[in-house]
Amino acid sequence: MTVQPAHPRFVSLEGGEGAGKTTVLAALREALQRDGDEVVCTREPGGTPLAEMIRALLLDPGHEPPAAETELLLMFAARAQHVRETIRPALERGAWVLCDRFTDSSYAYQGGGRGLDPAFIAALEHHVVGLRPGLTLLLDIDVASGRARARGRDPRPDRIERERDEFFERVRCAYRARAAAEPERFRIVDAAQPAAAVAAEAVRQLRQWRAHAPGVRP
Amino acid sequence: MTVQPAHPRFVSLEGGEGAGKTTVLAALREALQRDGDEVVCTREPGGTPLAEMIRALLLDPGHEPPAAETELLLMFAARAQHVRETIRPALERGAWVLCDRFTDSSYAYQGGGRGLDPAFIAALEHHVVGLRPGLTLLLDIDVASGRARARGRDPRPDRIERERDEFFERVRCAYRARAAAEPERFRIVDAAQPAAAVAAEAVRQLRQWRAHAPGVRP
Repeated sequence: MTVQPAHPRFVSLEGGEGAGKTTVLAALREALQRDGDEVVCTREPGGTPLAEMIRALLLDPGHEPPAAETELLLMFAARAQHVRETIRPALERGAWVLCDRFTDSSYAYQGGGRGLDPAFIAALEHHVVGLRPGLTLLLDIDVASGRARARGRDPRPDRIERERDEFFERVRCAYRARAAAEPERFRIVDAAQPAAAVAAEAVRQLRQWRAHAPGVRP
Repeated sequence: MTVQPAHPRFVSLEGGEGAGKTTVLAALREALQRDGDEVVCTREPGGTPLAEMIRALLLDPGHEPPAAETELLLMFAARAQHVRETIRPALERGAWVLCDRFTDSSYAYQGGGRGLDPAFIAALEHHVVGLRPGLTLLLDIDVASGRARARGRDPRPDRIERERDEFFERVRCAYRARAAAEPERFRIVDAAQPAAAVAAEAVRQLRQWRAHAPGVRP
């Protein structure tokens, strides 16, 4: 399976529970907008009306839990829609796209966490996504600290947040393995630092990327 | 990609719009129940609470239309759930399963109709379904007659029923090609006959199958 083409203005944020993606996303947006660029902030699963309805099916425990394979296909169904309706059109008109989670999350959660075959995930990526971020910031934090932070922010966890620590340890391992395998795309940010320091570090990484990325105005 | 194992008590009904699947399903159920067998009647997309919610997303035009790839993955997400929650448990306790549409519909509608790669559909079938019906009854009718019947039954077509005739011609071609490629599994029923004759023919085919299928009580 070939590696998907990377787009230089497409930036994804990845990480486990409580890594602080929301705060970092706001800081990245502000930094780019300050320089006069159009920025589209979006998230997965979600990012279009239909994809947000799929997100609700995935996270709401109001029906029987999805099988691991069902969860994976719903994630990619939402992603197929998101890429075609939101991400590609934004990139084509010259905007930056900042995305809270993308395909790496499927490798980490449904591959690492649930044990589904990474080769099948790669087939889905190849057939229905066809695009990778130019830069992926992995907000890395140990599972215990991350979960404690997440619980502090929202005491009502969704279906995936209710998984056991071992699940999130496997997710973290899968993320780190992906970052090691694609060092030119990934930057690891130490998310155990105070929130302001995490955001500043992420902005610094993005600026460095922008200064050197092919085809991006410095 | 290997052919999926077929289960002798798993029977699917396939066909285009207005082929009369609902009437035939009721007749098949009655025939099997008269002989004292447990029969589970189910449908796709659907067949579990979550899969029925996915069905609603697929057929309701209340949001932006799904991309072809989104449609395909939603169909298989629902199917993955349906196989695990409904179909396999029923077969394992010895029941017959009569299913209104199954994987052949994805090859016909998303493959033939929408032009998606059949090799990718086969990969999805291999990874998330892992099961084929022992018997598939294809209710075959020309597109114009079938659509006229469907409109007569329900004047409010769903999203897929609103497609153009050329789409349904491609669907019919794909169905017939699949039947020709797997003659031991498919029986073609002439669905242009009056409804009672179609149902009688389908019941006769099912009885013949039951009398000769491996591992099925005659």
